[in-house]
Amino acid sequence: MTKIGLVGLGYWGPNLARVLNQSRVCDFVACCDLDAKKMEQTVRQYPTVQPMGNLDALLDSDVDAVVIATPISTHYELARKALEAGKHVMVEKPLAHESALARDLVLLAEQKERELFTGHTFIYSPPVQKVKQLIDAGELGDLHYISLSRVNLGLYQKDVDVVWDLAVHDISILLYWLGESPIRGASFGRACVQRNKRDVAFLWLEFPSGVIVSNEVSWLSPQKMRRTCIVGSQKMVVYDDTSPDEKIRIYDKGVDWHQPQTFGEFQLSYRTGDMVAPYLDNSEPLLREVECFVRCIEKGEKGMTSGDFGAKVVEALELLQASPLDVSEVTVATGEVTPR
Amino acid sequence: MTKIGLVGLGYWGPNLARVLNQSRVCDFVACCDLDAKKMEQTVRQYPTVQPMGNLDALLDSDVDAVVIATPISTHYELARKALEAGKHVMVEKPLAHESALARDLVLLAEQKERELFTGHTFIYSPPVQKVKQLIDAGELGDLHYISLSRVNLGLYQKDVDVVWDLAVHDISILLYWLGESPIRGASFGRACVQRNKRDVAFLWLEFPSGVIVSNEVSWLSPQKMRRTCIVGSQKMVVYDDTSPDEKIRIYDKGVDWHQPQTFGEFQLSYRTGDMVAPYLDNSEPLLREVECFVRCIEKGEKGMTSGDFGAKVVEALELLQASPLDVSEVTVATGEVTPR
Amino acid sequence: MTKIGLVGLGYWGPNLARVLNQSRVCDFVACCDLDAKKMEQTVRQYPTVQPMGNLDALLDSDVDAVVIATPISTHYELARKALEAGKHVMVEKPLAHESALARDLVLLAEQKERELFTGHTFIYSPPVQKVKQLIDAGELGDLHYISLSRVNLGLYQKDVDVVWDLAVHDISILLYWLGESPIRGASFGRACVQRNKRDVAFLWLEFPSGVIVSNEVSWLSPQKMRRTCIVGSQKMVVYDDTSPDEKIRIYDKGVDWHQPQTFGEFQLSYRTGDMVAPYLDNSEPLLREVECFVRCIEKGEKGMTSGDFGAKVVEALELLQASPLDVSEVTVATGEVTPR
Amino acid sequence: MTKIGLVGLGYWGPNLARVLNQSRVCDFVACCDLDAKKMEQTVRQYPTVQPMGNLDALLDSDVDAVVIATPISTHYELARKALEAGKHVMVEKPLAHESALARDLVLLAEQKERELFTGHTFIYSPPVQKVKQLIDAGELGDLHYISLSRVNLGLYQKDVDVVWDLAVHDISILLYWLGESPIRGASFGRACVQRNKRDVAFLWLEFPSGVIVSNEVSWLSPQKMRRTCIVGSQKMVVYDDTSPDEKIRIYDKGVDWHQPQTFGEFQLSYRTGDMVAPYLDNSEPLLREVECFVRCIEKGEKGMTSGDFGAKVVEALELLQASPLDVSEVTVATGEVTPR
Repeated sequence: MTKIGLVGLGYWGPNLARVLNQSRVCDFVACCDLDAKKMEQTVRQYPTVQPMGNLDALLDSDVDAVVIATPISTHYELARKALEAGKHVMVEKPLAHESALARDLVLLAEQKERELFTGHTFIYSPPVQKVKQLIDAGELGDLHYISLSRVNLGLYQKDVDVVWDLAVHDISILLYWLGESPIRGASFGRACVQRNKRDVAFLWLEFPSGVIVSNEVSWLSPQKMRRTCIVGSQKMVVYDDTSPDEKIRIYDKGVDWHQPQTFGEFQLSYRTGDMVAPYLDNSEPLLREVECFVRCIEKGEKGMTSGDFGAKVVEALELLQASPLDVSEVTVATGEVTPR
Repeated sequence: MTKIGLVGLGYWGPNLARVLNQSRVCDFVACCDLDAKKMEQTVRQYPTVQPMGNLDALLDSDVDAVVIATPISTHYELARKALEAGKHVMVEKPLAHESALARDLVLLAEQKERELFTGHTFIYSPPVQKVKQLIDAGELGDLHYISLSRVNLGLYQKDVDVVWDLAVHDISILLYWLGESPIRGASFGRACVQRNKRDVAFLWLEFPSGVIVSNEVSWLSPQKMRRTCIVGSQKMVVYDDTSPDEKIRIYDKGVDWHQPQTFGEFQLSYRTGDMVAPYLDNSEPLLREVECFVRCIEKGEKGMTSGDFGAKVVEALELLQASPLDVSEVTVATGEVTPR
Repeated sequence: MTKIGLVGLGYWGPNLARVLNQSRVCDFVACCDLDAKKMEQTVRQYPTVQPMGNLDALLDSDVDAVVIATPISTHYELARKALEAGKHVMVEKPLAHESALARDLVLLAEQKERELFTGHTFIYSPPVQKVKQLIDAGELGDLHYISLSRVNLGLYQKDVDVVWDLAVHDISILLYWLGESPIRGASFGRACVQRNKRDVAFLWLEFPSGVIVSNEVSWLSPQKMRRTCIVGSQKMVVYDDTSPDEKIRIYDKGVDWHQPQTFGEFQLSYRTGDMVAPYLDNSEPLLREVECFVRCIEKGEKGMTSGDFGAKVVEALELLQASPLDVSEVTVATGEVTPR
Repeated sequence: MTKIGLVGLGYWGPNLARVLNQSRVCDFVACCDLDAKKMEQTVRQYPTVQPMGNLDALLDSDVDAVVIATPISTHYELARKALEAGKHVMVEKPLAHESALARDLVLLAEQKERELFTGHTFIYSPPVQKVKQLIDAGELGDLHYISLSRVNLGLYQKDVDVVWDLAVHDISILLYWLGESPIRGASFGRACVQRNKRDVAFLWLEFPSGVIVSNEVSWLSPQKMRRTCIVGSQKMVVYDDTSPDEKIRIYDKGVDWHQPQTFGEFQLSYRTGDMVAPYLDNSEPLLREVECFVRCIEKGEKGMTSGDFGAKVVEALELLQASPLDVSEVTVATGEVTPR
């Protein structure tokens, strides 16, 4: 069975530890963190896991694969070392803080013939997969636009702004659903509470197939929203991740356009049918993600959230920053963004 | 009592007829429409109203004021004639289809010393006025950003796109709340059903005080939303116009930022208190609007939705179109927008 | 075409006047009310309707049918006179204030070979009819129980308590759905605001097929609820009349019980499938009701809400009062019910 | 520090183990269960806890107090033994399966001068305590009625019906809020899935102060509801335990009744003001409950959910069964209740 070591036991690491321990397709054998206390807690909870004093010790051990859940700015360095040591690697999202570095990891993994995997957990969640099935089956018709809101109060991150913290989820979901990367992007945001760190941003994306996307992300919002609306020419879907029972709602609604037959004016008709909230199984996405990683190692396949997929997400995030349409620096210039 | 004539009995006109008849501060004495049938219906319902064969006949009569509810492209011409005939004029929103023409009307009204008024009804609705009070009283603190969604399935307009149909409401509300005009704007949309007529658009606005705004408008959405979120440094408000009982919800929430005291890192704390949904009276905005127009005539004052206010709304709509940040034409260029 | 006269222009009468005027299957020719002002208003709005000084004048005219929308205590007397004058009669719900009187009207209508009809409007509403179809088609399986809440703040009635005002709707719906009358009933309530007039009541009913029912009605509740939950062995339905778009929600949920195969314990399994909110047309129930009345007259048939149906509703209301299980008088006895 | 042993590691026991381990006011030192595997799991997770082969071994140890979380029918026997061994005892709800046995335990605890405590966790939840404060402060005015719904699909219990499983929560909450025991009760239910075990029931209660109560409990319902509506003469409260952020909503609503001044009719006016959803802290009720138990032991005081309180809850449950108004046996008699 694949032996796995976990690097990083901070905010997200304990969740990974739990599913690595729970899974029956791999052995969770080692962990490592700069904070000795966190290692101690982990080992107490999972007595068969061996604590490692540092990454080198972990890489020298007989683990087959390494899961990296450290701060984003360290992803590249740690993943590179693990790949060079011949380990399979899963990196928490985003794969790296620059797309060039992400691409470098993808290349290295190919050279070393090792699996490189990114922890985009939402791709393994039943509602996100349900929408993918609906799109691929053509049930929604041609996609017109997608509007996504991911807002709540907090949780401010230390090393990234709200786009790299929250929009990274939405962008991974979009790339998965559409199977293509955006050709244009723009962002508009504001650093309201801390200098130079945007806590609210509005993003626009345009995809080759013509789909346009608006994405609202905020750490500064009174109501929690995890709402995505997908509008197709045949059906429309609302994916609300805060709903306990009806995360997916499929609307048989649309507008039909009739060419004028004679000289007349265009004619529109509105179509309204049933709404269906399909049953979704409630298996845990994180467990499915980790087990997908293990299966990919065993079969030598690429998973849905391969390194290449992870690199594309980072490229889209950079597109949002680099675009000439980006007006986010304006808010910095006005001097309005000083912390209050 | 001020004698009023109504021009245009199409989609919106009958609502104006109803409140003109209901109000006790004015006399609804005459009406006029190209469609004789509609005049007949109106006169049957309000027997004291005199039908006029055309605008000239109406302007020759002794009406003091004219209310214009015709297609947008005719607003300028009709309002100009009415002002030149010495009548006070109320024009349905938007005041004109170009800002230069709107400004021309404002100037003419000043020269003629007549009241020019715009029918931005939302400004007279209790929830919109409640938010204005909260902002002016400083209860929300400094305003960070505002996010507005106005989406539903239909109702497609013939002579304007979704921005001029729906965003005109949101922009009037923003100008009223903030008391300033945007300095930057951009729009991103798509013509999904009909060629060259956008049925979905995402708008960005930046105001001199630093407030940034995102506005989503769509005729092509499965759920009706009329949701506005106003985020201030002290409190946050959600204004949901689809809620029967709780249109305004005031959240005592925020994030406080503490300067590092020594070398340390910044510190944030989240503040959460009560939520209050204040009682709002349910007087009809349209009646209040019409009576405000009459009072302005009587007192020689400018109302909240004066011609100048209406012109500013048109200027903001143009800013959204003219801005170099506008990418809406891109979607036209891709050929993806042909009607399906 | 059937000529109809309307008696009673108070709270509900104007709604009947509107649909009688709107319908193309009958002629609304006359009206009558003790209040001359109300007749004047009606005639102004519907100029072809003739005002009648009193009921006798109306009955002497050539109207074929009479619609009665007067206070409940007058229903019997007015309906009897109209039947004796040879008119077809539709009476607002409830048919009479005592079941013996209701039965008397049914008998008289049979003798006179005239249509007697009751205005139980909910029976003509699309969601109520949808549930009836689901039950009759066996889609819900065996019915276990039904729980209904009809509560809000106000509107206090002058001549009846909350049971006769609100539960009359729920009972008519139950009789229509189940096609049977209750064999047992009990009520439990309290007169909170006014002496001897219950403004909140909880009702229990048991039907021959075994279905049990709980019905909560209140004039004194902070949130408006119009919620009915129907639990069958195959599917479950929630009918929420306050929902703008999803009045009916059909849940493919249930519990299956497995007989122990050997010595073992019973085994239960929970079944959860899709939820469907079917599209419902939005035709007006009151118009459909009036047109059903007219069609019944023309064809000599009994409608869904015939006099016999109306009498059964009154019998069920009496069962709730007369049952030995009724504890409502207890609250009177405690002296707790004095108005505060 | 008080040393505590836990008896019963089945459905609820692990939650108690977690908080006993988490709390800093007591020592979780021992556990005991018939299932050796469950003890093993517990000890692995909490290495300092000693597994005991049976209750006698536990009672012979130096634990000061015992927490009992075994099937209901065993509560009395186990609690009696523990009290006789001189231990303080906390018993999961309900205290016993008969009120006489519950009273016997209360008496024994007094004789032995030991703390007897019942695990009615809801009494320690912030929203339930908030309502208690509002009632005691008189903010709601005189209480008129309370309506409670506690329904969902499953979870069927083996040894009790839905009343003893779910209504036990509502009754404990009512006794806590009102500070009095019901003088009348009736229940109406049906055994839909299994013979002789009611899975849906409707309960009525009347309290000495005049408050009437309706309580709906069901294991067979498509939507989860945990909704309680408290109607007072001054204010009304809705306590919705399924709401993530607004469990308590306080409505400034009411009906005022004016005595007729002359001969005239009564006059009612409806009062509508703001709605407030107060901030509630999110401390864990189960931890607060356990720590209350420990404090009561240390100070020799009676807690809110003392043995006496627990006995009163059992008495109210019996009242619901024994009352002449109970019609639940009727459904058995009709033969309609055979499992399908």
